Amino acid sequence: MLYIIGLGLGDEKDITLRGLEAVQKCQKVFIEAYTSLLSFGLSSDGLSTLEKLYGKSITVADRETVEEKADDILSAAASSDVAFLVVGDPFGATTHTDLVVRAKKLGVEVKVVHNASVMNAIGVCGLQLYRYGETVSIPFFTDSWRPDSFYEKIQRNRKLGLHTLCLLDIRVKEPSLESLCRGKKQYEPPKFMTISIAIEQLLEIEQMRGENAYNDKTLCVGFARLGSEDQMVVAGTMKQLSDVDFGPPLHCLVIVGNTHPIEEEMLDFYELGKIQGQTS
Amino acid sequence: MLYIIGLGLGDEKDITLRGLEAVQKCQKVFIEAYTSLLSFGLSSDGLSTLEKLYGKSITVADRETVEEKADDILSAAASSDVAFLVVGDPFGATTHTDLVVRAKKLGVEVKVVHNASVMNAIGVCGLQLYRYGETVSIPFFTDSWRPDSFYEKIQRNRKLGLHTLCLLDIRVKEPSLESLCRGKKQYEPPKFMTISIAIEQLLEIEQMRGENAYNDKTLCVGFARLGSEDQMVVAGTMKQLSDVDFGPPLHCLVIVGNTHPIEEEMLDFYELGKIQGQTS
Repeated sequence: MLYIIGLGLGDEKDITLRGLEAVQKCQKVFIEAYTSLLSFGLSSDGLSTLEKLYGKSITVADRETVEEKADDILSAAASSDVAFLVVGDPFGATTHTDLVVRAKKLGVEVKVVHNASVMNAIGVCGLQLYRYGETVSIPFFTDSWRPDSFYEKIQRNRKLGLHTLCLLDIRVKEPSLESLCRGKKQYEPPKFMTISIAIEQLLEIEQMRGENAYNDKTLCVGFARLGSEDQMVVAGTMKQLSDVDFGPPLHCLVIVGNTHPIEEEMLDFYELGKIQGQTS
Repeated sequence: MLYIIGLGLGDEKDITLRGLEAVQKCQKVFIEAYTSLLSFGLSSDGLSTLEKLYGKSITVADRETVEEKADDILSAAASSDVAFLVVGDPFGATTHTDLVVRAKKLGVEVKVVHNASVMNAIGVCGLQLYRYGETVSIPFFTDSWRPDSFYEKIQRNRKLGLHTLCLLDIRVKEPSLESLCRGKKQYEPPKFMTISIAIEQLLEIEQMRGENAYNDKTLCVGFARLGSEDQMVVAGTMKQLSDVDFGPPLHCLVIVGNTHPIEEEMLDFYELGKIQGQTS
């Protein structure tokens, strides 16, 4: 049996009782490293906190070796109980769908233990989840690669009065260009997009397109370390938020659509200059 | 301090360690009854399971007395630690935003413990969460009230190739019309919308509008008891799903938009006639 277990957003205490029971009875425990590296601070310290809580040693399945590890995981799961731990909810990210598909094709039973993900925890700011349009991703721009497909999506959502969740780029274990040229892989340090970089890129595209999908006065909500004890939630215009220091990762951004009175009342509490960086 | 604690979707084991710790240190514990009645089977049995786990007695705050109870909850939270338990994630439903707003206005500190909600757990079927458009609600039609504002929303989502989550109506503690006429409130038995009723209503509106936003051949995914041990997930056309017996509540329905290959591979596993009612 393959258990895919969501760990939630904050730290080791965000696992559910169901998840904890499952991981404790598994013979092997893997953790996906792609997002967990950042959000759980999975230095060896963070990992040993989890290992102590579970009473199990944990193998980190990093992104590069995921193919190889997937085979290990699945062959172990064919004959014993295996846990694959995922930050947030197992299906918050696309990458885990592939593992499930492969498991099912091999006839390996899969059980999913759900948990909170960014997709629902953003509800904390008071904007209603059913009033969001399509979610967009903001990738790091490079000199030669400045993809802007998020622009039409945000524009569409805003025309309909809907809110837009912007997921901000994370780069973990990216081989450096220089090392690739030399034929020997070396990795760039992990890189995560801050809210100010996201806003800078958003405004660059708006300036280029000039269709006023949004502008620097558009109301947004910035989130840092959502679901953690020290989470930060601030509402303000794009211009205002781009000057806020949101601190360590992960960050995400919501571009606000039309608001209902109850949504406005909640947003008020998070407004810049009122109770800045309020945690809740 | 007011702790608003998500219980997740399945049963008492879906609370997080963080949530359990918080509820165990609270002097008073309330549970919102609106959805919990159905999804946690909160007969007195279900309630005592929770009480045993937490080592606390729990007060049910039903929907009708929510105003009154909100005052109780908030005045208790002003001077002690109070837990307000919510099925799913605290902000999956609009009703809890109001409680938070009132707490903040009174200067009562609020801490939120997130958990899984329907909004992210539907990811289990393989359709990517970021490819959903606006969520719609399907209310029970009556002889004189057949609201169809969901139609345009589904139509828009489908034109953009996006998936649509349809939340199906729940009626708990509705006073019967007859009893209201008599001036003495009596309640209708709890009523939840099944997937077949939802599809019947959807197709009725399509027939009336005739704009082919969808039809009985449109691919959908039906979910029952999502997140529970006995959850049921079936993919099929509207016509096919309307004949499936999904069993006890809660049900919800996703109308599929354009699909990516990895989404199709996952949906295949849930297709009617293949592995019907597969749990995962």
